[in-house]
Amino acid sequence: MSSKEKVVIIGGGWGGYRLGYGIDHRKYDITLIAPDNTSAVTPLLASAACGLFDPRLAHEPIRRKDFHAKYIKAFVVDIDFSRQVLVCQPAFEELKEDRFEVSYDRVILTPGCRSNTFGIPGVAENAIFVKTVANANTVRTRLNDILEMASLPGISEARQRQLLHIVIVGGGPTGIEVAAELTDLFEGDLGVLFPHLKGLTSVSVIDVAPQILAPFDQRLSEYACSALKTNKVKVKLNCHIVNVTKDTIETRESGITGYGMLIWATGNRSIPLVDQLQLRKTEHGLVRILTDDHLNVFSPDGNVIPNVFAMGDAADIEGGTLPTTAEVAIQKADYLIRLFNSGLKDTRPFKYQQRSLVTYTGAWDGVVQGQREYTGYGAWLSWRSGNFFWTRSWRRRVLMCYAWFMDWLDGREIIRN
Amino acid sequence: MSSKEKVVIIGGGWGGYRLGYGIDHRKYDITLIAPDNTSAVTPLLASAACGLFDPRLAHEPIRRKDFHAKYIKAFVVDIDFSRQVLVCQPAFEELKEDRFEVSYDRVILTPGCRSNTFGIPGVAENAIFVKTVANANTVRTRLNDILEMASLPGISEARQRQLLHIVIVGGGPTGIEVAAELTDLFEGDLGVLFPHLKGLTSVSVIDVAPQILAPFDQRLSEYACSALKTNKVKVKLNCHIVNVTKDTIETRESGITGYGMLIWATGNRSIPLVDQLQLRKTEHGLVRILTDDHLNVFSPDGNVIPNVFAMGDAADIEGGTLPTTAEVAIQKADYLIRLFNSGLKDTRPFKYQQRSLVTYTGAWDGVVQGQREYTGYGAWLSWRSGNFFWTRSWRRRVLMCYAWFMDWLDGREIIRN
Repeated sequence: MSSKEKVVIIGGGWGGYRLGYGIDHRKYDITLIAPDNTSAVTPLLASAACGLFDPRLAHEPIRRKDFHAKYIKAFVVDIDFSRQVLVCQPAFEELKEDRFEVSYDRVILTPGCRSNTFGIPGVAENAIFVKTVANANTVRTRLNDILEMASLPGISEARQRQLLHIVIVGGGPTGIEVAAELTDLFEGDLGVLFPHLKGLTSVSVIDVAPQILAPFDQRLSEYACSALKTNKVKVKLNCHIVNVTKDTIETRESGITGYGMLIWATGNRSIPLVDQLQLRKTEHGLVRILTDDHLNVFSPDGNVIPNVFAMGDAADIEGGTLPTTAEVAIQKADYLIRLFNSGLKDTRPFKYQQRSLVTYTGAWDGVVQGQREYTGYGAWLSWRSGNFFWTRSWRRRVLMCYAWFMDWLDGREIIRN
Repeated sequence: MSSKEKVVIIGGGWGGYRLGYGIDHRKYDITLIAPDNTSAVTPLLASAACGLFDPRLAHEPIRRKDFHAKYIKAFVVDIDFSRQVLVCQPAFEELKEDRFEVSYDRVILTPGCRSNTFGIPGVAENAIFVKTVANANTVRTRLNDILEMASLPGISEARQRQLLHIVIVGGGPTGIEVAAELTDLFEGDLGVLFPHLKGLTSVSVIDVAPQILAPFDQRLSEYACSALKTNKVKVKLNCHIVNVTKDTIETRESGITGYGMLIWATGNRSIPLVDQLQLRKTEHGLVRILTDDHLNVFSPDGNVIPNVFAMGDAADIEGGTLPTTAEVAIQKADYLIRLFNSGLKDTRPFKYQQRSLVTYTGAWDGVVQGQREYTGYGAWLSWRSGNFFWTRSWRRRVLMCYAWFMDWLDGREIIRN
């Protein structure tokens, strides 16, 4: 047996993946537990879903030559903090009744969130989320299907317009990027492969909020909104969804509308493990585990629980709330990597550094907010090079460049399941 | 309306795809009807399934910039030869009760075959076929799952050996290539990503026939068999399967054996349309539509039915039987392309030209039979360059070269769903 301290990381998203590679395996015996053995590059999912490149490029295997941690494909379903033991369920349908235990000396909780349907009837059954590469593949398959269904002989124009109406719920960066990519696709390559469907497609973005892109300044948000409208995206704000069926969506403001694909790009909800744990949590909005500024968690009576850290979308710092973004998860992971690799001697608190926000709005236009704000072609360049930066291996970067070049030269490869 | 003759092609495999691109769209109004809007590059499926490159590279979209035919995503379920009308069912689960008609002036039947389970209980539910890119993806996903399940804490060695035992039924070129690719994977990259599973994997090939690679000479077949055994593949010939469950296979000769993945690479069976049509067909083995040497079909009483042609795996020439291979389908498609593009004036009969047979047996070895026979490293080169030749676009050829280069440099990307 190893005499090194045993560090267990729960979750394989932005935070968990980075911790697994960053904590020094010569100093610690590291185990990463997550239900998926790949880590999604979330900012790439919108483009991948719309055929800009292969969805496989939008995730990274956790197991690689240079990965020195152990990996276990499982859900953590409970934690016994006094015995320092995790209760795990194998992440395979055929083994879902099995349970096994994993002990730890220190544990880092970064399991993320799930999508929130806000209890609206029909959403879970009929909408497509944009959280994983499997979701991006579902969007591609459905896009393929509605284009082919609308091409069947004898179909009415009304039915074609319904099939080719895509509704995106959520005016955040993901929803806006999906809308932008879809209009680029419909205005561009679609005319070559499906010339008979030209003019029959439409894209709507619905949000309950009074503005899109809430994290951006109002000026930039309005710019993005008008850029989307120029690209023929219908933006419906202050809009409340009351019901969804397999081909219609009903809002309090506009009644019932038909659709061919419904993309749900809004709302986070806590996962069952976070609901289950007896820890101090946020009391309003998304349920998140509260930590101090060293990312330690608290028992319900307010004492720090030793050796337990929490970060990523599932956690927040008490008195210093931060958004659920990859950027925050990465900075917290880097903080814990420094802490662990210093032998837990570097006791400075965590401090967040604000970085740029970038969103693509279609037709080589976009918005950037950071040290300076800008819009237009320069913002598009920022966004594309951001995609490049997010990608975590050179192997994938070369493939992405090739895909961009061939998309430009030869058209997108959307017709490929 | 067009005054051109209306030619309908049924099927989008090797034959149908080639006809759709080859028949002159300036002379004919062409429609291709097939349930999938991509065409599988069947010789690449074995390698794609085992992670040599992305399965997406092993199929080609039917709709492309240079595709001038109409495409309809549907099954043809019946043909009224007197009215010259096809009855079609949309190839979408949600529209499977719908029917529509398509009329033709001339029709070419090349709908292919489906897999044959020979009525053995449990095969349809538990085995994975190797006919489409969706199948190749299923093999990859299952491979990924059994490797991860065998890595769960506390699993017994007996259970690991069962999970990592892969059984391939069928000693034809596809089955042998899957076996070869799997042993390459297990002996190579697997040791890096799953070092704890080294020595626990095994591959068996089962066939009811007394030799593998039936289309090859006996000398080459024996060479391939010994090459596979050197690579630790267990080959069981003259072996009769009687029952399959979700994790065991029972043969008359060896009783019950556990497995983790069962790949079914044997046997063709006629599709429902071929069973349904009132045409003259073969009487023994696989049911195929009989044609004359101009590829015209016959009514049951032996008269040629005008304007109806049949080719590919679903058809055979009366008195001159040919195997169900891509090579035969391609040569027949080229024959019909010449016939149609000559305005049906070139009335020479079809003649088959024998080409080389190539199969990979693992570890840079293989067998080639053609104008001259050879084995070993040269045969491996033939096989790889054959893969290259089968690929039907430069876009994909560049990606395949890059994948080979990176596999060699950096290991296969098997852990990626």
